[in-house]
Amino acid sequence: MSTTRQLHFGAILTGVGTAQHEWLHPAIPGDASIDIDWYRQQARAAEAAGFDFVFIVDSPYITPESAPHFLNRLEPLTLLSALAGATEKIGLVGTLTTSYTEPFNVARQYASLDHISHGRAGWNVVTTGLEGAAGNFGRERHIDHGERYRRAREHVEVVQGLWDSYEDDAFPRDKASKRFLDPSRQHRLEHKGEFFQVAGPLNISRSRQGQPVIFQAGVSESGRTLAAEVAEGIFAGVDNFDDAREFYADIKRRVAEAGRNPEHVLLFPGIDPIIADSDEQAQAILRERQGELDLNKALVQLGRPFNYHDFSQYDLDAPFPDLGELGVNGYRGHAERIKRIAREQKLTVRQAALRFGQPFSSFVGSPQTVANEIERWFTQGAADGFNIHVGPPEDFARFTDQVLPLLRERGLFRGDLAGDTLRANLGLPVPRNRHAVAAERAALARAQPLAS
Amino acid sequence: MSTTRQLHFGAILTGVGTAQHEWLHPAIPGDASIDIDWYRQQARAAEAAGFDFVFIVDSPYITPESAPHFLNRLEPLTLLSALAGATEKIGLVGTLTTSYTEPFNVARQYASLDHISHGRAGWNVVTTGLEGAAGNFGRERHIDHGERYRRAREHVEVVQGLWDSYEDDAFPRDKASKRFLDPSRQHRLEHKGEFFQVAGPLNISRSRQGQPVIFQAGVSESGRTLAAEVAEGIFAGVDNFDDAREFYADIKRRVAEAGRNPEHVLLFPGIDPIIADSDEQAQAILRERQGELDLNKALVQLGRPFNYHDFSQYDLDAPFPDLGELGVNGYRGHAERIKRIAREQKLTVRQAALRFGQPFSSFVGSPQTVANEIERWFTQGAADGFNIHVGPPEDFARFTDQVLPLLRERGLFRGDLAGDTLRANLGLPVPRNRHAVAAERAALARAQPLAS
Repeated sequence: MSTTRQLHFGAILTGVGTAQHEWLHPAIPGDASIDIDWYRQQARAAEAAGFDFVFIVDSPYITPESAPHFLNRLEPLTLLSALAGATEKIGLVGTLTTSYTEPFNVARQYASLDHISHGRAGWNVVTTGLEGAAGNFGRERHIDHGERYRRAREHVEVVQGLWDSYEDDAFPRDKASKRFLDPSRQHRLEHKGEFFQVAGPLNISRSRQGQPVIFQAGVSESGRTLAAEVAEGIFAGVDNFDDAREFYADIKRRVAEAGRNPEHVLLFPGIDPIIADSDEQAQAILRERQGELDLNKALVQLGRPFNYHDFSQYDLDAPFPDLGELGVNGYRGHAERIKRIAREQKLTVRQAALRFGQPFSSFVGSPQTVANEIERWFTQGAADGFNIHVGPPEDFARFTDQVLPLLRERGLFRGDLAGDTLRANLGLPVPRNRHAVAAERAALARAQPLAS
Repeated sequence: MSTTRQLHFGAILTGVGTAQHEWLHPAIPGDASIDIDWYRQQARAAEAAGFDFVFIVDSPYITPESAPHFLNRLEPLTLLSALAGATEKIGLVGTLTTSYTEPFNVARQYASLDHISHGRAGWNVVTTGLEGAAGNFGRERHIDHGERYRRAREHVEVVQGLWDSYEDDAFPRDKASKRFLDPSRQHRLEHKGEFFQVAGPLNISRSRQGQPVIFQAGVSESGRTLAAEVAEGIFAGVDNFDDAREFYADIKRRVAEAGRNPEHVLLFPGIDPIIADSDEQAQAILRERQGELDLNKALVQLGRPFNYHDFSQYDLDAPFPDLGELGVNGYRGHAERIKRIAREQKLTVRQAALRFGQPFSSFVGSPQTVANEIERWFTQGAADGFNIHVGPPEDFARFTDQVLPLLRERGLFRGDLAGDTLRANLGLPVPRNRHAVAAERAALARAQPLAS
């Protein structure tokens, strides 16, 4: 297609927020994370603004110190199924771990969401970075990082295989001949792998978009490999331009090396813009937020990628400690990034808590400034779009009503959803059914036996 | 409460139907089982008629010979979450197996559905009767019947324990004092049992109805024991008055023996009424349906409770064979019932296929006749209500528009939903949080140290 490359946006809906203080905002109800009407309003606002998808984060483990949204929230698949009926075109992307789920159940629920939403489902594949999760699923200890990613790779392979259980013409549903199913178009999977044995077939057909879109959010070495092999959208946890460019180039290179089309893998850095009438006002808001920060809570948040390592034990004004292997089996990519930046920038523990114990934003300023920064990332190889944190409605409205029009004027953002499936909106191809492809190849080979 | 005992109704929504021929009806779209709009219409019709709940059956295994609805259908939890937004008062009961799921995930999804629907969720607990399901979940063979039920008992115990992770006052959400959670009201479960080890806490609070309502559908000895111990609603697979009375009395007795209140366990036989202007016309419809029956498909359906045992191998006019242990690890209760009735009534294989290979109904006749039969079951100890199979819209309308008014006139059916939670509609108590109860007891014991 010769159309100009366009920005895509996702809306991260987190109710009362994954930051410690967000719920204190007067416009955010205390029960926002379990209030379906709150999510409905936000999803509709995002859809009206031309966002491509809403995005639901997830994790199956909490402690009393967890951030408010983590403590008490709706589960992604039930939430998104409810949002399907409240929206028409916007994509519905939900996070689910491959470490503590059965591929058959996962395949069914996402396929069902895909039908319920008429082709708008996406699955953000994660492996769960918190060791405590193991205790909720009968395991003595969390699965090792490397094994988690091997398991994730196989899990996704099984799920995608199950999604192709039926070819698109499997159901003639012809009442005259009483023929509901064409059994030759129903396929068993018979998967036998390192972690899973799944016979199939799945008991649900493909949707209008063929299969749900696969997202991935890992930034470690294993996470990048998985992303290159299976992801179509990447929720990139990078928060500054240089890191984002490095990540973007690295992923696109790996995708090409894996024999896939880099244009069919879109990178969405997650950002939390602070927008005000002027740059000065926006910076003042940022300083105010930082000033309000509860240092103890920031230390807890800093410890989360390291499996809630207790940072309050250190002298806060001493250099960031050598943590050795800590974090290797947690959110490894994030943990490694914190260690690297703390070392490079010679941060103290206090500075690290202020830097990483709260949302960090390179997108602070007037609508013009934020639009400029978005344009820079988009045109200089750091992003294909952004996953925008949705906070108080008036803050989100500043983004949709003041920043998006500037991007539209510059021809960078279409502003209306191109289609009514997630794949159509993102410009991703509809994957053909593997059995139909195989049958076609076999037929060709039979027709041209001497061509090879 | 001194109000008169009232009939309750559930609506079993099965799209194109679990019987072989239902999809051939001109009013049923071929893709009804994956069409969310079809379910929405049916759920709204049931709600408007004063039904207490919709009911979604489920099973995680198919073959090419499975009935049309089984082959390709929406998954219950995603489906019900979508229906929550299309309805206001009707309960939402979904089937899910305890044999191939993690209690933590199950607890989360039902609790989330319960919040999304503002207190209308119910879980129909099943153990999966089809051996083939094992192959979709990495097992060489299906879990044994006895173990399945021990596992189900523990699974439900864990799920209910997780549902009580937060006391109802756990979230002060006081912005002035910046107090979101009262950590003393968050409880870990620390369950260590035969099948599960689950630490908790669950990351979602209780809904307006306290906990989702537990349904159960087993009729075997183990199924009845489980029902007596944990069920609040029972989807009874009994299709004639004598069996239903025996089952009803047996369950109520077991409930009382388990120390529970029999009025808080409601029995809903599943029925598929055939209603016409006169008894003769209704009987003619029944004969026509039976005449249209494809005997080969009826034999497949007959084999299903016996793990798809192949009945076509027998002389169809010979006596029903001695099947030995067959079916013991399948749908045991149903298999035992078929064996018993075939023996008592000296059925041939053909007669057994015609009797059990299709929906059987004792509710055939004019609206008056069907209302009489419902009244008989309800007042003579065979049912607290019924789970009604919803087929073509005009057939369902005959039930809602012609039978229900008769029951209303007789004072047996209120006809409007009493409340807007499932528990309120069914007259079931809201379970108090176990930790709040324990704390209260401890406080009492401290206050009256000498009273004991």
